[in-house]
Amino acid sequence: MRSARSSRSKFMPARSKFMSESSKSMCERCPQAVGLLGGGVIGGGWAARFVLNGIDVRLYGPSSGAVERVQKMLANARRTYQRLTQVPLPAEGALIVVDSVADAVRGVELVQESAPERLELKQQLLADASRAAAPETLICSSTSGLRPSLLQAGIDHPERLLVAHPFNPVHLLPLVELCAGQRTAHEALARAAEIYRAVGMHPLIVRKEVDGFIANRLQEAIWREALWLVHEDVATMQEVDEAIRYSFGLRRAVIGPFRIVGDGIGIRRFLEKWGSVLNSPWTKSTDAPELSGAFLSKLVEQADAQTKADNLTIAELEQKRDDCLTAVLQALRAEGFGAGETLARWEQRLRDRLTRPADGSGPLRTPVLEMHSDWLDHNGHISEWRYLQLFSNATETLLSYIGVDSEYRSKSGSYYTVQTNLSYLRELYAGDRIEVLTHILGADDKRLHIFHVVTRESDEGRVATCEQMLLHVDAVARRSRPVQGKVRERMLELARLHAELSRPEPAGTSIGLR
Amino acid sequence: MRSARSSRSKFMPARSKFMSESSKSMCERCPQAVGLLGGGVIGGGWAARFVLNGIDVRLYGPSSGAVERVQKMLANARRTYQRLTQVPLPAEGALIVVDSVADAVRGVELVQESAPERLELKQQLLADASRAAAPETLICSSTSGLRPSLLQAGIDHPERLLVAHPFNPVHLLPLVELCAGQRTAHEALARAAEIYRAVGMHPLIVRKEVDGFIANRLQEAIWREALWLVHEDVATMQEVDEAIRYSFGLRRAVIGPFRIVGDGIGIRRFLEKWGSVLNSPWTKSTDAPELSGAFLSKLVEQADAQTKADNLTIAELEQKRDDCLTAVLQALRAEGFGAGETLARWEQRLRDRLTRPADGSGPLRTPVLEMHSDWLDHNGHISEWRYLQLFSNATETLLSYIGVDSEYRSKSGSYYTVQTNLSYLRELYAGDRIEVLTHILGADDKRLHIFHVVTRESDEGRVATCEQMLLHVDAVARRSRPVQGKVRERMLELARLHAELSRPEPAGTSIGLR
Repeated sequence: MRSARSSRSKFMPARSKFMSESSKSMCERCPQAVGLLGGGVIGGGWAARFVLNGIDVRLYGPSSGAVERVQKMLANARRTYQRLTQVPLPAEGALIVVDSVADAVRGVELVQESAPERLELKQQLLADASRAAAPETLICSSTSGLRPSLLQAGIDHPERLLVAHPFNPVHLLPLVELCAGQRTAHEALARAAEIYRAVGMHPLIVRKEVDGFIANRLQEAIWREALWLVHEDVATMQEVDEAIRYSFGLRRAVIGPFRIVGDGIGIRRFLEKWGSVLNSPWTKSTDAPELSGAFLSKLVEQADAQTKADNLTIAELEQKRDDCLTAVLQALRAEGFGAGETLARWEQRLRDRLTRPADGSGPLRTPVLEMHSDWLDHNGHISEWRYLQLFSNATETLLSYIGVDSEYRSKSGSYYTVQTNLSYLRELYAGDRIEVLTHILGADDKRLHIFHVVTRESDEGRVATCEQMLLHVDAVARRSRPVQGKVRERMLELARLHAELSRPEPAGTSIGLR
Repeated sequence: MRSARSSRSKFMPARSKFMSESSKSMCERCPQAVGLLGGGVIGGGWAARFVLNGIDVRLYGPSSGAVERVQKMLANARRTYQRLTQVPLPAEGALIVVDSVADAVRGVELVQESAPERLELKQQLLADASRAAAPETLICSSTSGLRPSLLQAGIDHPERLLVAHPFNPVHLLPLVELCAGQRTAHEALARAAEIYRAVGMHPLIVRKEVDGFIANRLQEAIWREALWLVHEDVATMQEVDEAIRYSFGLRRAVIGPFRIVGDGIGIRRFLEKWGSVLNSPWTKSTDAPELSGAFLSKLVEQADAQTKADNLTIAELEQKRDDCLTAVLQALRAEGFGAGETLARWEQRLRDRLTRPADGSGPLRTPVLEMHSDWLDHNGHISEWRYLQLFSNATETLLSYIGVDSEYRSKSGSYYTVQTNLSYLRELYAGDRIEVLTHILGADDKRLHIFHVVTRESDEGRVATCEQMLLHVDAVARRSRPVQGKVRERMLELARLHAELSRPEPAGTSIGLR
């Protein structure tokens, strides 16, 4: 038995002091240990999810390279989790590599089998596990499509066996489809759901036992059609991928195919409009149910139930959809990937079109911005650091105004902030519309001393102020360097114009209890 | 003719001064004006995209309520764009409502037809448009599936007609499928692609004329299978939607179904493993191409080409996939929607498990954080406002440590920041690992004076400091109020312990050019 407790602790010497009593598992429903059978992509993903949630993992991975693969996946997942959340994670569980099924299932509360998709192999493994495990140990199979009743053949205590089908990457995607076999106890299903929920997943109970369950049946349908498109040279694989991830794929992260049609009236209208496509040659996978009156009634009823459960009007849902799509596009922009790249290119075009102002009289103003709910903190108002984001954008606008563009940056450098003093005067709420006014307080060849004020449109009140000192820095040498050429001219001219304005207050604040 | 120039300008009095010369359209390739035929969901989406990109829209929407619907969609899209980008948008184009096809296409560079999906109706509209428009005006149909060659019947100058199929919501989703008919000129396709790119879209040229093009064929396949699942009571509509958006739907925003299989070796291995499912009953839509040697070779070749084009190893692609999924989950968490809600619930469980520290000796430390590329600014280092996000999180950790939880917040209040002084000492880069140390400098019943230091793990150097004054505020009255009960005790005890530590420098900085 090899123990591979994570190396995370060596980076966090102070953590044990700060969180010394932190319990390892996440909740009372959480197991202390699980047994994993199989160390492939799915088994490795399970290992990462459980270990990072503070649960000990006993891994039986008979295939060659399984242990190294799982350790690598765990290292990647650890990096991803540090990024995923800023909430401190529990102390990691141990990754314990064992040499037999019996050793893997010993003393654990849940066994997760993720062996290759061969019925006999899975049956054998599960049967072995069921004989070595305590009778109350849950036994779950990660099978992508085999019916749990088939897997219950030859199992001791088959009432604790079910399918728990996750999605790659298992440490990130929340869905786990739970499917009971003919002999599965309801209580086993409920206990499993609790455990998966505790490790951050979204259990979905499949109400009827079918091959492929729900999600894979849908994936399989796309896959068939995608193969046809490539087979008939309508598109390359790359074009199929593009067609999805720049269009409805973005929507699928937010809402499913049914939710777009609205309530009962919506689906009726949708099917009146699009039902005929089911008989047209828009896809090679042609089987479709007949849109009988009874079937239509069922759809209408479920759509209405869904609308009621959502508790959102169609207009509100559309707004939410757009907000989520916006957030997803921004997320992908930050990654410079797919549709996010398209957004970034469009913004670059927008920036390229920003022309010089007519004159520099008065402070600079940023366009009016509306505050949104994703900027809120615990207290229900805009997070303090978002204020600095506003000011930082205003500084960018100023720099862009005086001519600091990508060419100047690469050739001559840019301004870096060395000191920022922020004063919070009023709270901002979602829906507030604000603008930022920027004064130059002083400037010389290397330094730029500026003052921003956020004002709210509704009451014209000052919401916050920000005083900053910027230093002109050579981009390559990363050392201070005098500002150059036209940027220098524009900056000094603007500073001269601003010197004639009344000096804003406060400027220069130190903090202390008196 | 009614002119409905947007009301945006009234909110931005200072803007015309700052950007007085800003040209209306986005680039030389951008049209000054487009004509829209049809004011439904698609026509309205086009109107919003064009108007917000500074292009005048001449709208012919014969259906009742079209104008009001389009104006409402424009208002929603305006709000969404303000959120989507902080780059200033060009001055909006005018929305000009007209009463005839001839008036809509007069003087425009592009006509976009988005009428209901009836061939004869579209043919008639397009023919009318082609006769009234200048011969060089591009004519594009938004049809979801009709072949462009069918639409070219009876058209003047059919060489400028093509399909440009967008996706709802048109103002947000970037894909537009461009499909040429038998008589479409290559030049028309290229000009159209330029225009759509200029308004932030991702044109994909469909290489073979087929019903439904690419994306809708794939959507149609899912839709059929989804209907079967509901028809056979395997799942409700709501469960189908859940199964998608909590699992592979998240992945589809990032990568298509083919990209997951890797390069040529990857797809060969994948098909060895999963090809047999094409003959198994995992879906009702059973047609699938035979996996012949020739077809397999084609797939292998295309997968290799894609891998080469991506210029990422499989491991790098997996990392990118995880980074993008993380970003998407975080985006949805901010919206409190779908998989984002699952993430938020998990984080709440993590927070609930944070226990009290063993003692308060030494400054508080946050867990080590790794800096990521989405935190970078133009200059290639971490954005200045992200520093404040780090400090703000450290303040949250301190508050959580002294017992400010959701119960305390709702009953007694919380601490609000009134002043923040930030000093930037070193730049941070992606990959840097940092921690934040927090000292209490002083405290009384209402005020909490704290000092944070960010240190980098690699060189143990101080990267930035942040001095903050917090005020204890009643959550309901939004007025300062003394700190209460156990939180007061813990806070004062910690302040006493920290008073024995050496006082960090600098503390209390004012800014000025000397």
